[in-house]
Amino acid sequence: MSKELFKSEDGILFTDQYQLTMAQLYFTMGLHEKEAQFDHFFRSYPDYGLHKAGYCINAGLETLVDWIVKCSFGDDEVEYLRSQIGSTGERIFKDDFLTWLRENGNFNGVTLYSIPEGRVVHPNTPLTVIRGPLAMAQILESALLNKLNYQTLVATKAMRIKEAARANTLLEFGMRRGQGSGVNAGVRAALIGGADFSSCVGISRSLGYPPKGTHAHSMVQAFMALGEGELSAFRAYAELYPDDCLLLVDTFNTLESGIPNAVTVFNELRAKGHEPIGIRLDSGDLAFLSIQSAKMLNDSGFPDTKIVLSNQLDELVIWQIITQIEEEAPRYGLDPERLINRLVYGVGTRLITSEGCSALDGVYKLVSVKDGAGWAPAIKLSETPLKTLNPGNKQVFRIYDKRGRATSDLLTVDEPSPAESKEIILRHPIDHSKHRVLTQDQVSAVEPLLVKILDQGKLVYDFPSIEEIRELRSRDMERLDLGVKRIMNPHIYHVSVSQKLWDLKQDLIRSVNGEE
Amino acid sequence: MSKELFKSEDGILFTDQYQLTMAQLYFTMGLHEKEAQFDHFFRSYPDYGLHKAGYCINAGLETLVDWIVKCSFGDDEVEYLRSQIGSTGERIFKDDFLTWLRENGNFNGVTLYSIPEGRVVHPNTPLTVIRGPLAMAQILESALLNKLNYQTLVATKAMRIKEAARANTLLEFGMRRGQGSGVNAGVRAALIGGADFSSCVGISRSLGYPPKGTHAHSMVQAFMALGEGELSAFRAYAELYPDDCLLLVDTFNTLESGIPNAVTVFNELRAKGHEPIGIRLDSGDLAFLSIQSAKMLNDSGFPDTKIVLSNQLDELVIWQIITQIEEEAPRYGLDPERLINRLVYGVGTRLITSEGCSALDGVYKLVSVKDGAGWAPAIKLSETPLKTLNPGNKQVFRIYDKRGRATSDLLTVDEPSPAESKEIILRHPIDHSKHRVLTQDQVSAVEPLLVKILDQGKLVYDFPSIEEIRELRSRDMERLDLGVKRIMNPHIYHVSVSQKLWDLKQDLIRSVNGEE
Repeated sequence: MSKELFKSEDGILFTDQYQLTMAQLYFTMGLHEKEAQFDHFFRSYPDYGLHKAGYCINAGLETLVDWIVKCSFGDDEVEYLRSQIGSTGERIFKDDFLTWLRENGNFNGVTLYSIPEGRVVHPNTPLTVIRGPLAMAQILESALLNKLNYQTLVATKAMRIKEAARANTLLEFGMRRGQGSGVNAGVRAALIGGADFSSCVGISRSLGYPPKGTHAHSMVQAFMALGEGELSAFRAYAELYPDDCLLLVDTFNTLESGIPNAVTVFNELRAKGHEPIGIRLDSGDLAFLSIQSAKMLNDSGFPDTKIVLSNQLDELVIWQIITQIEEEAPRYGLDPERLINRLVYGVGTRLITSEGCSALDGVYKLVSVKDGAGWAPAIKLSETPLKTLNPGNKQVFRIYDKRGRATSDLLTVDEPSPAESKEIILRHPIDHSKHRVLTQDQVSAVEPLLVKILDQGKLVYDFPSIEEIRELRSRDMERLDLGVKRIMNPHIYHVSVSQKLWDLKQDLIRSVNGEE
Repeated sequence: MSKELFKSEDGILFTDQYQLTMAQLYFTMGLHEKEAQFDHFFRSYPDYGLHKAGYCINAGLETLVDWIVKCSFGDDEVEYLRSQIGSTGERIFKDDFLTWLRENGNFNGVTLYSIPEGRVVHPNTPLTVIRGPLAMAQILESALLNKLNYQTLVATKAMRIKEAARANTLLEFGMRRGQGSGVNAGVRAALIGGADFSSCVGISRSLGYPPKGTHAHSMVQAFMALGEGELSAFRAYAELYPDDCLLLVDTFNTLESGIPNAVTVFNELRAKGHEPIGIRLDSGDLAFLSIQSAKMLNDSGFPDTKIVLSNQLDELVIWQIITQIEEEAPRYGLDPERLINRLVYGVGTRLITSEGCSALDGVYKLVSVKDGAGWAPAIKLSETPLKTLNPGNKQVFRIYDKRGRATSDLLTVDEPSPAESKEIILRHPIDHSKHRVLTQDQVSAVEPLLVKILDQGKLVYDFPSIEEIRELRSRDMERLDLGVKRIMNPHIYHVSVSQKLWDLKQDLIRSVNGEE
């Protein structure tokens, strides 16, 4: 990511006001430098309405860490806080707190563990763990959630779309419909999750990917307005980009004008020794038009040119298009598989906004506070049992069965790796009657998922490239049950707690209820 | 907005690749400096699924213009383009184009008209009009849509929520669930549309609004983990912020613990001469808990403290809460109106993401090209008649009836103001059988909506403050029919075309169909 300066609103003040007032309270109570641990996790998979995810793809870590290591309170920010006044005209922030903040308002004391980007992740599992001075760990909350929630949401959506597309090329086209400069984060996440390229130039450059694109209707319209036709527009484009010629054929009439004109130009290209890339369809019945276009292109000697589809695509629409092609293509004498494999998908709005579920419900919760030599676990009760916090300093283990498939994520608390015990007890996180017991002969591997990224503010992790992150993602997807990957009604992956964590949680619930 | 440097991916390369390849094509054809006009408009109101908007609030203009006047192609960007290679390893961009781009790759030739921010706007009406050299006007498309679509979407959602809240205080709380740094644009739009304050510190500062907040559950949890209770946490908070004391009462049990502890602290505050601000409820049945909390606060001598509600709120949920309070409060001896007017709403996810409709379908279409001395209108046909472009260089007039209510927006093309004709003919944009005729005695005012903002790249407009934009918005909302403002099933506001524009469009459709 870029190393340039932040705009003021993207720097350390990219936080919620209450983080600052709470930090001052901790300061006043002498708690501000007490070591605390916060877990970041999401509560439920994205639910898109008609369909729902059975996994997420973790993303956003490098963007977050890039922010953490560069941000601190300088004179400008401290003076701004000094100028804030409350309802009676008194200053909100006192001098002693501001003096401390100017000196210590950075993340040098923060240790960060995370499940790496690109990994498959599940609800109620710590994806990111922050350990550090209470005040600064609190101030970090808002930016952390902002930078992780959205990227994980989009990476997940991209993976689903890529799965629906049967791994054919996926182009990210959404910058015009995203949230301002937030699209840069969205493009990054889309590339992690499954998009192969993006149309967005600046961020593609920053990430080392070539941006991709074709042309718009306006190019054809401009020629028309000046008294020329679609054919002239195509010809001009082919002449300039003879080896990258991809023509948008639906400005007027796809089958009667666009494709015939494209074929004319493709023939001219070939006569000059160039092979066309393909056509793009951006409106109408994309399944029907794909078939008809493929037939016309085949009959004209272009059986291998790509057919790029765009216009309000998502995983369901793509699934529908492919299903329709499988049914209909044979009636026109086409091999459906061959047609499906020449399709390329340009996905805009519904990927960058994660249409149907536009936010991941990731949260950041205090789970323990260092008290003397030990850690005191913290809990927050909820009327919804699943929302009651898993307390304490936890580790997450992924357990693989004999087929090498991930069978459960297990949360433990201050205890040896489950690889070392004869039996692994997997307790349901809230239903006391449900548990599984695995013996080691049923298990092929036990993998700890959290990795140390920052040690007291110091980077101790080599960030992988986007390409390496994509490989991690592919490996995890291969080890995930097909039922969990299903686009609709996926199987529920097991996230379990150890007996020790179960006992700790029940003790705390009893203790809080007793006190209240 | 901030005047600091852009990150590279937020500068002039914040565009789609095809804009650049098309610009080079125009250059090669000698069309790059031909004057062209593009209209920006949206096609349909946000549709949230169960409910739908009947108007939008225009927003994003200053953010866009701020970008336009600062952006140009420098050496860095041009060298990057020089390095791009196509599928056969040839350079995509040629030296002559890059030389031109380095010299002329700025928006100094662009003239921009816009409907001001905060104004009520409707579909298929030019909200922004760009006139300038074809190549640069084309490159501008992606950033323009990015910066205008999202802000208009959020300003509209904020207005709907504010209407549902019966104009009570609305706090924007969404930064943790928005799209990365895009939330800064969202906060700005939320303030334009109806939010009174935001929790997000940096952007509030940039816009001159005090950020607002209370405290989180984690504060109470930290005290608990250290062996203290909720009461100690509240007391500490009240001591530090005696005149800004707003307590979150649902960490453990709202009615049995949170409210009683808050009342204890409020009494202590009052004994020291301070008045508490109120409480916040963030979970459970917010209508029921509002009533019970109000009753307990009233009975304890705090009938005026605010009750802040948060947790997955939007216009429907707020409407439901208020309806339930109107029904139930009297049973508990409470005046529902009084209770409703002490409520404050903290809205996060569903405002910043415009839950239910996460993108506005705004587009940017070539409508004419200067050809010699005159303008040649451009059209794009569509199988969906409403998607067929309104061609030519248009003006937009808002027509007010005798009650001072907006009755129609009228698109005209190169013709005198409708204020000057005896009768105003309002044609339905696609249905040839539908039209209305207004005589001047039925009309109280005819208002042109588009204002010149940039003249050949030069700013000729004084941007209003957010506060002034909010006043414009309120004035427009007062002049909008109640039926159009309705949250569910709103009346359809009339967007009409003049007879001259109707004729032009039909001529062009015939001419294109004839040619094809």
